[in-house]
Amino acid sequence: MTRARIAALLLAACGLVAGCATPPFAATPDPAAPLVLAKQGSFFVGGRDLRSDALSLLPAYLPSGTITVDQMYVRYQVPVQATHAPIVLIHGCCLTGKTWETTPDGRMGWDEAYLRRGHPVYVVDQTWRGRSASDISAINAVKSGKESAEKLPVVFAAGHEGAWAIFRFGAEYPKTFEGQRFPLKSIDEFWKQMVPDWLNAQPTPNPTVANLSSLAKQLQGAVLMSHSQSGIYPFQTAQIDTAGIAAIVSIEPGACPSATADMMPFTKMPILVLFGDFVDLSTRWAPRLKACREFVAAANKAGGRAELMLLPEMGIKGNTHMLMQDDNSLQIADLLSAWIAKVAR
Amino acid sequence: MTRARIAALLLAACGLVAGCATPPFAATPDPAAPLVLAKQGSFFVGGRDLRSDALSLLPAYLPSGTITVDQMYVRYQVPVQATHAPIVLIHGCCLTGKTWETTPDGRMGWDEAYLRRGHPVYVVDQTWRGRSASDISAINAVKSGKESAEKLPVVFAAGHEGAWAIFRFGAEYPKTFEGQRFPLKSIDEFWKQMVPDWLNAQPTPNPTVANLSSLAKQLQGAVLMSHSQSGIYPFQTAQIDTAGIAAIVSIEPGACPSATADMMPFTKMPILVLFGDFVDLSTRWAPRLKACREFVAAANKAGGRAELMLLPEMGIKGNTHMLMQDDNSLQIADLLSAWIAKVAR
Repeated sequence: MTRARIAALLLAACGLVAGCATPPFAATPDPAAPLVLAKQGSFFVGGRDLRSDALSLLPAYLPSGTITVDQMYVRYQVPVQATHAPIVLIHGCCLTGKTWETTPDGRMGWDEAYLRRGHPVYVVDQTWRGRSASDISAINAVKSGKESAEKLPVVFAAGHEGAWAIFRFGAEYPKTFEGQRFPLKSIDEFWKQMVPDWLNAQPTPNPTVANLSSLAKQLQGAVLMSHSQSGIYPFQTAQIDTAGIAAIVSIEPGACPSATADMMPFTKMPILVLFGDFVDLSTRWAPRLKACREFVAAANKAGGRAELMLLPEMGIKGNTHMLMQDDNSLQIADLLSAWIAKVAR
Repeated sequence: MTRARIAALLLAACGLVAGCATPPFAATPDPAAPLVLAKQGSFFVGGRDLRSDALSLLPAYLPSGTITVDQMYVRYQVPVQATHAPIVLIHGCCLTGKTWETTPDGRMGWDEAYLRRGHPVYVVDQTWRGRSASDISAINAVKSGKESAEKLPVVFAAGHEGAWAIFRFGAEYPKTFEGQRFPLKSIDEFWKQMVPDWLNAQPTPNPTVANLSSLAKQLQGAVLMSHSQSGIYPFQTAQIDTAGIAAIVSIEPGACPSATADMMPFTKMPILVLFGDFVDLSTRWAPRLKACREFVAAANKAGGRAELMLLPEMGIKGNTHMLMQDDNSLQIADLLSAWIAKVAR
C-alpha cells in the first residue's frame, strides 16, 4: 500500500474520526472503518500489600510471603482527537470488562463505539475479578487443616438457568420475552464471559469504589458508566468525593441510592439512570426501577440534574438487562453518547 | 483539527505503518505515533458446559445449574496492513495477558510493539485465569460441609519474596543482579499484575493447549509465543496437531520437550527458544536452559529448524526472566520480529 493510498483510506474514514469536518454525530460509527488511536495501554489503580502464610501448598512455591490485592485493572484507548468526555466502563455481576468488548455474535462492543465517537475509553475489571487479583489464602489455610471450612471465601457462580431470568432474556429459562433483542443464537459465547464472583469475599467497603474515585480524579472529569451489580458504585464514589466525576450513567443498577439519603453529592453532576424493557415482568427488577425513580425525584428535588430513561417509553423496545450486547446496542450507545455530549462536554 | 492536518499527521506516522514506502524495520516503532488499526476485538476459544450443585451458598443465586469453563479469552488487534505473521502471546505463571501490555513503568508493551511492526496480535488469558472462568464449586461444596477439605482446589499465589528469585531480579529477595534491566523502581506496579494460579486445579491435559491448537488453525498460520509456565504449551500444541502453527517462540520456558521425545512434530515449523541473562546464577533456571539446548540439538538432528538464543551470548546483557518488561524490551521485540520475518513471512 502506498502512502497516498493510506492517506486516502484514512481520509475516507475521517467522517468517523471526531474533529473532522463532517458532523460528528451524523451516523453510527462504521465498525469497518480504520480505527486511529492517539494511544492505548493498561494500568492498575489502588492495591494493598498483604502478608500471608497460606499462599501455596505446592513445593515449588513458598507458603509465606507478600501479595498485592484490591488493585483494579484498567485498559484504555484514546482516539486521535478526544473531543468528548472520557468514559469509564464498569461491568456487573459475574462478568469482567469483556462485557463491553465484541458482542457474543461478533459485533463491535461499546468500548470501540464510544472511542469512534471521540471518547477516551477506560474498561475496568472490578477488584478480585478478571485481571484484578483475589486473595486465595483462606482456601489453602482450610485445605491444610489450619482453619475450619467456615473460613472459606464467599464466592459464587451464576448458572445459565438462573442468570437467564436475571438478565431478562425471558421470565424463566429457557422461555423468551416476545421481541427480546439479545442475540440468543450466540448465547453459548455469552456464557463464556461469565466468571466466579468474589464480591462478598472482599473487604468492606468494596475497594473498587475507592479505586474509581482515584481514577476519576486522575482523568479530571470522567463519566462513570456502570451496570447492574456495579450500578451503585458511581454513586458510592460520589459519596466519597465528587471530584473528577463529570457525569454518572447507571445502567439497570441493582440498587440506586436511597431516596432518603443525603442528596448533596448527587446534585454535583448530571445523572442518568437507564432501564430496558420487560422490567415490570420481573419481580427482581420492577422494585429496583421503582426505587430508582424515587431516587431521581429526590435528587432533583434537592437541586440535582438527574434523569431516568425507560427505553420502551422512548419507543425503543425489546432491550434486555444486557442491553450493551443487544442487537440495537449501537443505537443505545449513540443515545448515551449524545446525552453525555449534551451534559458533560 | 482539519482533515489536512490529520492526513499530514498520519503521513508523518507512515514510516511506522507496515507497507509504507520507508523500510519497515528501519527503527523501533515510535510509541507516540498514531496507531492505525484495521480491526480489534475479543472472543473465546473452547469451553465446556459443566453441571454443578455448589455454585452458590447465597440466597440471591441458585446453587444448582450449568456453568461454562475451560474457554480461553483472546483479545486481538490487526494493523491496517498486516504484512507479517500473526503472533499469539501466551503469559506465564501467576500472570495474565496483562504481561504483554504497558510495562510497569508505563512504556509500550509487546502487544503494541508487534502490532506497529505489522503483526496481527492475539493476547490470551490462560484457561481458569483472568477473564477465563474457573470452577469454584469445590469451595462451596466444602464450605457447606458436603465435601471434605481435601477436595478443595489446588490454587497458589506467588509471593513477592519468592517470585523475586524466580523472575531473576536477583539471587534472593531483595538483592539484585548487577546490571539487571527490570524497571525495579516500578516493582509495585508489577506485583499488581500477579493473580492466583489455578493451573493445578484444571483438568488434564490443560485446556489451554487444545484451545491454542484451535486458535492456530483459525488463524491459518500463527506464531505461538509463550513464556515460562506456558513455554511448553506451543510444543504440546504441535504434538496435538502442527496445523496452523507458523513458528514457535518459547521465551524462558519452564520446560522444553524431552530430547528423547518424538521429534517429528518439532521438525514441521521454525522454533526459537530464547533466554536472558544470569541463567547460570540460578539453580532453578540453569538446568532448564541445559535441557532446552539438548532439545534444540535433538530437533535439528531430526531435520528441524530450531535455534536457541542466549541474549548475553549475542551481546545483550542484563535481561531478567520478565524480559518483555525490561528496559530494553523493545530491542528484544525487534529481534524477535526480525527472526519471525525471516522464517515465517
